[in-house]
Amino acid sequence: MVSSLRLPSLTSLFSSPYLRRPPPLLRRPHHHHKLSFPPPLTTAFSSQTTSASTTENPKKQTNQDQKVITPRSQDFNAWYVDIIANAELADYGPVRGTMVIRPYGYAIWEAIQDYLNAKFKETGHSNMYFPQFIPFSFIEKEASHVEGFSPELALVTIGGGKELEEKLVVRPTSETIVNHMFTQWIHSYRDLPLMVNQWANVTRWEMRTKPFVRTLEFLWQEGHTAHADPEEAEKEALQMIDVYTKFAYEQAAIPVIAGRKSKAETFAGADRTYTIEAMMGDRKALQAGTSHNLGQNFSRAFGTQFMDENGERQHVWQTSWAVSTRFIGGIIMTHGDDSGLMLPPKIAPIQVVIVPIWKKEDEKTGVLNAASSVKKVLQSAGIKVKLDDTDQRTPGWKFNFWEMKGVPMRIEIGPRDVSSASVVISRRDVPGKQGKVFGISMEPSILEAYVKDKLDEIQSSLLGRATSFRDSNIVDVSSYDELKAAITLGKWARGPWSASDADEQRVKEETGATIRCFPFEQPQGTKTCLMTGSPAEEVAIFAKSY
Amino acid sequence: MVSSLRLPSLTSLFSSPYLRRPPPLLRRPHHHHKLSFPPPLTTAFSSQTTSASTTENPKKQTNQDQKVITPRSQDFNAWYVDIIANAELADYGPVRGTMVIRPYGYAIWEAIQDYLNAKFKETGHSNMYFPQFIPFSFIEKEASHVEGFSPELALVTIGGGKELEEKLVVRPTSETIVNHMFTQWIHSYRDLPLMVNQWANVTRWEMRTKPFVRTLEFLWQEGHTAHADPEEAEKEALQMIDVYTKFAYEQAAIPVIAGRKSKAETFAGADRTYTIEAMMGDRKALQAGTSHNLGQNFSRAFGTQFMDENGERQHVWQTSWAVSTRFIGGIIMTHGDDSGLMLPPKIAPIQVVIVPIWKKEDEKTGVLNAASSVKKVLQSAGIKVKLDDTDQRTPGWKFNFWEMKGVPMRIEIGPRDVSSASVVISRRDVPGKQGKVFGISMEPSILEAYVKDKLDEIQSSLLGRATSFRDSNIVDVSSYDELKAAITLGKWARGPWSASDADEQRVKEETGATIRCFPFEQPQGTKTCLMTGSPAEEVAIFAKSY
Repeated sequence: MVSSLRLPSLTSLFSSPYLRRPPPLLRRPHHHHKLSFPPPLTTAFSSQTTSASTTENPKKQTNQDQKVITPRSQDFNAWYVDIIANAELADYGPVRGTMVIRPYGYAIWEAIQDYLNAKFKETGHSNMYFPQFIPFSFIEKEASHVEGFSPELALVTIGGGKELEEKLVVRPTSETIVNHMFTQWIHSYRDLPLMVNQWANVTRWEMRTKPFVRTLEFLWQEGHTAHADPEEAEKEALQMIDVYTKFAYEQAAIPVIAGRKSKAETFAGADRTYTIEAMMGDRKALQAGTSHNLGQNFSRAFGTQFMDENGERQHVWQTSWAVSTRFIGGIIMTHGDDSGLMLPPKIAPIQVVIVPIWKKEDEKTGVLNAASSVKKVLQSAGIKVKLDDTDQRTPGWKFNFWEMKGVPMRIEIGPRDVSSASVVISRRDVPGKQGKVFGISMEPSILEAYVKDKLDEIQSSLLGRATSFRDSNIVDVSSYDELKAAITLGKWARGPWSASDADEQRVKEETGATIRCFPFEQPQGTKTCLMTGSPAEEVAIFAKSY
Repeated sequence: MVSSLRLPSLTSLFSSPYLRRPPPLLRRPHHHHKLSFPPPLTTAFSSQTTSASTTENPKKQTNQDQKVITPRSQDFNAWYVDIIANAELADYGPVRGTMVIRPYGYAIWEAIQDYLNAKFKETGHSNMYFPQFIPFSFIEKEASHVEGFSPELALVTIGGGKELEEKLVVRPTSETIVNHMFTQWIHSYRDLPLMVNQWANVTRWEMRTKPFVRTLEFLWQEGHTAHADPEEAEKEALQMIDVYTKFAYEQAAIPVIAGRKSKAETFAGADRTYTIEAMMGDRKALQAGTSHNLGQNFSRAFGTQFMDENGERQHVWQTSWAVSTRFIGGIIMTHGDDSGLMLPPKIAPIQVVIVPIWKKEDEKTGVLNAASSVKKVLQSAGIKVKLDDTDQRTPGWKFNFWEMKGVPMRIEIGPRDVSSASVVISRRDVPGKQGKVFGISMEPSILEAYVKDKLDEIQSSLLGRATSFRDSNIVDVSSYDELKAAITLGKWARGPWSASDADEQRVKEETGATIRCFPFEQPQGTKTCLMTGSPAEEVAIFAKSY
């Protein structure tokens, strides 16, 4: 039983006339009734660009079996939703803007969870769980917080058949309820630092949604800490953005730029927000994780105080930090290509797929036995391996299918390989013959070493490629005209900035770009604000973003 | 830094005049303002019995430092909420009936998750995630489902500042939305079986709540499967109740009785419900996990069909099954005693606590070094060990604290132990001197073997004790009078039953007991219905329940 085939995608709904290569993919019986409702992902999610997909494609009319992905260069958004549908990562929920995360997509989330969860615990945080229903009055307690979140709230007004006395907010984030509880738990400096995290669902009533990137409900982790002094809180906020940065580079192979948000882009209720910004394949920026130094804003609003060592009552200093299922969107849009998803080995649910190849029935047993023993060798070496031994599909179909699912490495085993006790290995990141190596010995220690080595190479290669792409698309600018030119070309602009919030707003209105961050890594030397000509202490990065 | 001390509980709120032993526990500065609101757990949760706790206790007035647990025999419910507060398992949320699961309680949930998650994957299920907002119309599609869940729904009526066209249900369970999606994913017999699970929060607007046992929002896993024939669905439903049963016996040391629910107690929308029923310390039954054979009820309501091998369209056969944070309540109420929580080693977040003991400053280094190396030995053997090396508390305070937290084993190391290169080991399940063994060698292989062996012994001992308790409290009855007598004594009654639903209802009204299940394990021989005198095929178990 091939578990990945258990949940067929709505492939046949997504097709495009811009086919580069037409592999025969998932076979699907004709059930026209099911195609009529609900609408395909591309329309169910109100996306920023319009899908090029069309049901007029004659190829689809004649062959329900074909599964095609819009070329990335043709229509980035259509390509993105095609991948999500075809690689079976997610589907739309029945309520506008909600998303069902399918097993393959969820397995990527589990890989993210496994890594981060271990890091959170290593850095002294404990998991716990806060209720998702928050009294409406809580949200109103912190002035900028209510301003930031009010437009996006989902409210429960009826419970057990009765109108509630106080409306309940379905958590958009938990700072308010966390502070309500912290106020009861924190009494003395001995209770500090208090460092917790929760893995939870959150709800924000977004108008423009896009699978993974922005959905009405999403999954995330939110860390919340309280400290006795501002230095410790600042250190914690920086530590956690560093954990996220390392995760992005080392696991997801995404060369994010870490830095500080401008005042205008700071979290509603924070003193400072740190961010990691990732460049997607269309060169838009994606905010992939944030860490906030909340100062005493929430502790003052909720009266979260402690007795310090001198017996004085003080408000605690706090942080919060989060990474969400949006990160999966970032992985898709960083590494994917026209053949589909491309997953970095370290977060791939399947790192190696084995495709046995036989023509005659008398070859089958030998090939399958060899494939099984290769699987066992790799599995016992801790590699996530799948043997696709169904005989309902051809090897060619399987090649395309697993490439589309982004599996980093494929091992092919045919009768001739069995005779020579070797295998053929193909890399997902190097297409065609170039990525194919013949005659790798099946001898366990050799094979294991080779596969591990190649997986590391693929991991580095993906990061290297994304880094080159990023660096070739960031332009250093020293005037507003240069900034505008860079943004018009779809690039990121980096330049000295010490202008006003009003100037920042003007850039946004005139170019569509925002300050993504003041990067931690700053160039040396004196700087002159690109907008005002006044001295500037830092460069900022401007870009259009998701 | 002792992480468990970071989150002090509201201990001083809970006290009782019925003190058996008065250990000085958590030190807490006097902050009277914080004691005034919110109300203590015992009143915040409307429980079935009234707490014996009182703020009139003179001991509390004179010593804020004392942390006391109501004796179990005195007031089981007060004892239960005292443990939850004092062992820092949970706290009440700001909304009536909601619960904050604190790090120590959540760590127990993580142990449950780790075990079950592995078993679900081994048995072929994939994790995924369905949105929590369900269109109200979905709930109405399956007749008995809407009848069962309507009174308990929380409804979102406002989103993004606007009244919604259709009210959204915050999921009380996900069968409806699961079927909506399954209908889109399932086309042919090749798509079956479809076997998924999700870990999620669910909401039921309960009127009578009790921490862990019944809360407005709780955490659970819900498995959902679809099959091509009824036999396979039945097999799956039975397989999953078996997974739960093994978990209860082998991990939680709870000797549940597995069986089938009566028609009246079957899940709203199921053909058959299987259950595991646990006997709590007060001899009430707790339904600790259920597995439902849903038949074609939801597939007919949602049109979830597939093309079978003969080209015929058929409705799928389904199951669903769940275990929730309620299980933590079951663990507390099965094993806890007057000293506090008692955790089975296999699910204890901390299996061994090391308490170093020194009086003079010159003893400290030697003792702490020895304690550290013992910790390392046990840690590298895969044992969950904590070294409590704070010098803010006395060893006696620590003994009581970790006993109250239910840690299965304590290792004491003093200067004399350092000289003799040995340790003292105490078992949580055997109080006082009887559970204490002196002179266990620190030699790594000896110590590791001893500790592992003892942890296994504690695990078995807990199960054995709970099994004896259960068996001595189940009475075989052959008439309604005998049944009533057994229930009046607070026991479970087991007797042959083939009477009507009306008779079952009458038993409930007259005795307060319900049929907990028809156990899988049935006595041999002919049976006569205890109510009607007619032939009966099975015995049923009657009990009062949570």
